[in-house]
Amino acid sequence: MFEVAELGLKLTKKEFEEKAPDLHTRLLQVQRELLESGKAAIIIVSGVEGVGKGEVVNRFNEWLDSRGIKTTAFWDETDEQAMRPRYWRFWRAMPAKGNIGIMFGSWYTRPIIDRAFGNIDEAEYERQLQEIVQLERMLTDDGVILIKLWFHLAREKVQKQLKEDAKKKHKGKLKRSPYTAEFEKQFEKFKKVSQTAIRNTDVGNSPWHIIESSDVFYRDLTAGQILHDSLSHALVSVPVKKKKTKVAKKAPAEPVAKTILDAVDVSGKLEGDAYRNQLKKWQGKLQELTWQARNEKRSVVLVFEGWDAAGKGSTIRRLTQAIDARLYQVISIAAPTDEEAAHHYLWRFWRHIPLAGYISIYDRSWYGRVLVERVEGFAPDEDWQRAYNEINLFEQQLTESGTIVIKFWLHLSPEEQLARFREREKTPWKMHKITEEDWRNRDKWNDYKLAINDMVARTSTEFAPWHLVNSNDKKFGRVEVLKTVCKALKKALG
Amino acid sequence: MFEVAELGLKLTKKEFEEKAPDLHTRLLQVQRELLESGKAAIIIVSGVEGVGKGEVVNRFNEWLDSRGIKTTAFWDETDEQAMRPRYWRFWRAMPAKGNIGIMFGSWYTRPIIDRAFGNIDEAEYERQLQEIVQLERMLTDDGVILIKLWFHLAREKVQKQLKEDAKKKHKGKLKRSPYTAEFEKQFEKFKKVSQTAIRNTDVGNSPWHIIESSDVFYRDLTAGQILHDSLSHALVSVPVKKKKTKVAKKAPAEPVAKTILDAVDVSGKLEGDAYRNQLKKWQGKLQELTWQARNEKRSVVLVFEGWDAAGKGSTIRRLTQAIDARLYQVISIAAPTDEEAAHHYLWRFWRHIPLAGYISIYDRSWYGRVLVERVEGFAPDEDWQRAYNEINLFEQQLTESGTIVIKFWLHLSPEEQLARFREREKTPWKMHKITEEDWRNRDKWNDYKLAINDMVARTSTEFAPWHLVNSNDKKFGRVEVLKTVCKALKKALG
Repeated sequence: MFEVAELGLKLTKKEFEEKAPDLHTRLLQVQRELLESGKAAIIIVSGVEGVGKGEVVNRFNEWLDSRGIKTTAFWDETDEQAMRPRYWRFWRAMPAKGNIGIMFGSWYTRPIIDRAFGNIDEAEYERQLQEIVQLERMLTDDGVILIKLWFHLAREKVQKQLKEDAKKKHKGKLKRSPYTAEFEKQFEKFKKVSQTAIRNTDVGNSPWHIIESSDVFYRDLTAGQILHDSLSHALVSVPVKKKKTKVAKKAPAEPVAKTILDAVDVSGKLEGDAYRNQLKKWQGKLQELTWQARNEKRSVVLVFEGWDAAGKGSTIRRLTQAIDARLYQVISIAAPTDEEAAHHYLWRFWRHIPLAGYISIYDRSWYGRVLVERVEGFAPDEDWQRAYNEINLFEQQLTESGTIVIKFWLHLSPEEQLARFREREKTPWKMHKITEEDWRNRDKWNDYKLAINDMVARTSTEFAPWHLVNSNDKKFGRVEVLKTVCKALKKALG
Repeated sequence: MFEVAELGLKLTKKEFEEKAPDLHTRLLQVQRELLESGKAAIIIVSGVEGVGKGEVVNRFNEWLDSRGIKTTAFWDETDEQAMRPRYWRFWRAMPAKGNIGIMFGSWYTRPIIDRAFGNIDEAEYERQLQEIVQLERMLTDDGVILIKLWFHLAREKVQKQLKEDAKKKHKGKLKRSPYTAEFEKQFEKFKKVSQTAIRNTDVGNSPWHIIESSDVFYRDLTAGQILHDSLSHALVSVPVKKKKTKVAKKAPAEPVAKTILDAVDVSGKLEGDAYRNQLKKWQGKLQELTWQARNEKRSVVLVFEGWDAAGKGSTIRRLTQAIDARLYQVISIAAPTDEEAAHHYLWRFWRHIPLAGYISIYDRSWYGRVLVERVEGFAPDEDWQRAYNEINLFEQQLTESGTIVIKFWLHLSPEEQLARFREREKTPWKMHKITEEDWRNRDKWNDYKLAINDMVARTSTEFAPWHLVNSNDKKFGRVEVLKTVCKALKKALG
């Protein structure tokens, strides 16, 4: 496929200087339209060493208004990055709405290098490429304009270029990064592996553009032109999606069909010494296991969802009592900040993903998308419907990096909830926990039941299963959660 | 000073259980008041190993509403943290307005350990403590409520406690972190060093509270009580500072007194081959030097301020043309996001501090505080006036970690600015750069001149000097900047 980029296409300096000012103006224009559209754009700059990717990045920065651009170079991973799932650093670099993110190096780099050096086999390589396809679809579904540029040079041209660079090295010309020699040797290998990458990820919503780079004028003008056309095409053809604030459905008057929650046995109870002994036993085990996880550098993500007043907070405290305070973080999910709202909804959860060996406990989570946002109509149908798949992909990326993901739904009966609401209204240090919203949510019990049923059905995977816990008796529920976490850790750890 | 915390103060379980519910309620109350006040609170939890700091942190999390708290444990630095100035990770953990940040371990930990192990001498230790005093003053000046708790145990009690813990280890009790044995041996040494820390940093705006910790009930109730009293005292006694939106001063009709800008020679010019040769020469040197900086793991912070239309953008591009795109980031400073606005104004600049070996180029910077915010009256007088000192401290912290800080003011004459404004209005790809605001700023030329004069006078330090550059001739200015950066790097690098 690279033959199309080995034709020797050229522009004279004069031609370039005639055309560049107009392109410059039009790029600034389309950048302003992007800002107004509220869409984000990602430009992926790829290609072997020696084709001048850095020069192109500089050219883009020259042509565009720097106030809306962020260039991120994905160099070697730092220790801290390596201690997180591989997509973490890319999520950190995602541009906010209206902005352009230039990615110099990207999620393609590591799979290509791993395959070229034989660290992974072809099957694993193609699996990783499929993961990329899914990630990119997630982004474009969210309105991101994804522009993927591949800069190519025929082999003999690369060699020539590298030799020239080597000669010029001490004459004040730009030097290549230190990887040059190795990359040159591996050129053919990389070419083949790169072709596979392009072929497997060249999909309608995010096509590849292969750009011949033997002539800098042709290269830069073509890249700029593609950038302009891709942006203006995306801005014209796809009108900005209006977030419909759908009116929330009324709770059905009839009881809903049987859901998975009806199968939860809420009769179990635990009290007195039996409770205290169990609590002590499992807290002890948990304490040992969390140190073991730390030593084995496995991180843990615990997700707590549940009915209002089911006891998420007090259950989490029984866990944290047993964990060294340096090892865990409790993340309480509230309304997103404006930075968070300007990104894909998963972005704010990626922010808090723990380092290897540490524990993040989410008090409410990304499942808000398919619970409250669905039931209240905050997210349009198509958004929450594709969220199941996005969430599965997200959790798969976590578990692939060695993170242990455990998810809880704390269940209670409507009668028990009512009793707890009444109790809260009477207790001074609990009063703040009961609001109008809790009563409104309660009225939508059946809508939530359906949403919970769908959530569990679609996102209970073998790598990140749901646990429906009987919290009708708080003490029973706490011990159940502790026990489940311990068993999951024990199974996952060496 | 620790004698006061070796009295054997105790509470029975019954006493604790009688008093705790009331304290719990009052803490929740004062936490809500904090949220409404728009102030942030930081709780520093300190003390030797074995006093139960982790248990106290858990207790606070139990008593307070978890939605407004963030606990951060400062464990060993990760590689990535170690590659940034030492205060970076603390800035990342600063609570937003209305929230509480619990710091388990803090900026005290490393100086105390370094001194106890003899890595630093007494003079350096006291200097670091002074730096802490200044940091804490910066925070309290910004309205942060700083509550510093020191948990103490007599030596024999620590030993007893540690022995008991060791016995209980496998009976499901909480285990101490692995440092125990070492800390025990060093107990007296740490005690002495800690006393110095407390004595040197026990100042009016952020006093220490020493809490006897031989009895868990006494310890927790006392800590909770201090937390409550400190918060409610701070919320009552210091009314929330209203940000006065001062009306900006009119530009004085008379020309202002001679300022430092009048001394800038704006006659230098450079064009044609002379310019191209100089540009090429210094870009070549810069490229070598930035690689050298990368290899020596020295980071570089370049600050660009200047009159509108002085050519900040084009000057920065002449720099970045010469730097490998993987080594630098250009940070364009625009209005703060809401997350940024909810923190100390320096917080958003700390976010972008480069890793060791990398370069951050700020297109406008923290100096906005003493320029636009002063002139336009966005910041009250007392805020921008203390900013000089805060900025010096900030830049000192950067340079102490090995960062090379170079600051430029790009200067031009009012006549040249006018000519450029007119030119911009006529050129398609420059039109977007000229706005009403530029004309308004121009009317305030004299106010800005005074502000610039003060800024240079107060923040041009030996570790981070200002360079006033003649940009009346753009080409001259660009070469001047390149040359200055090269010389500064050459001087700083090995």
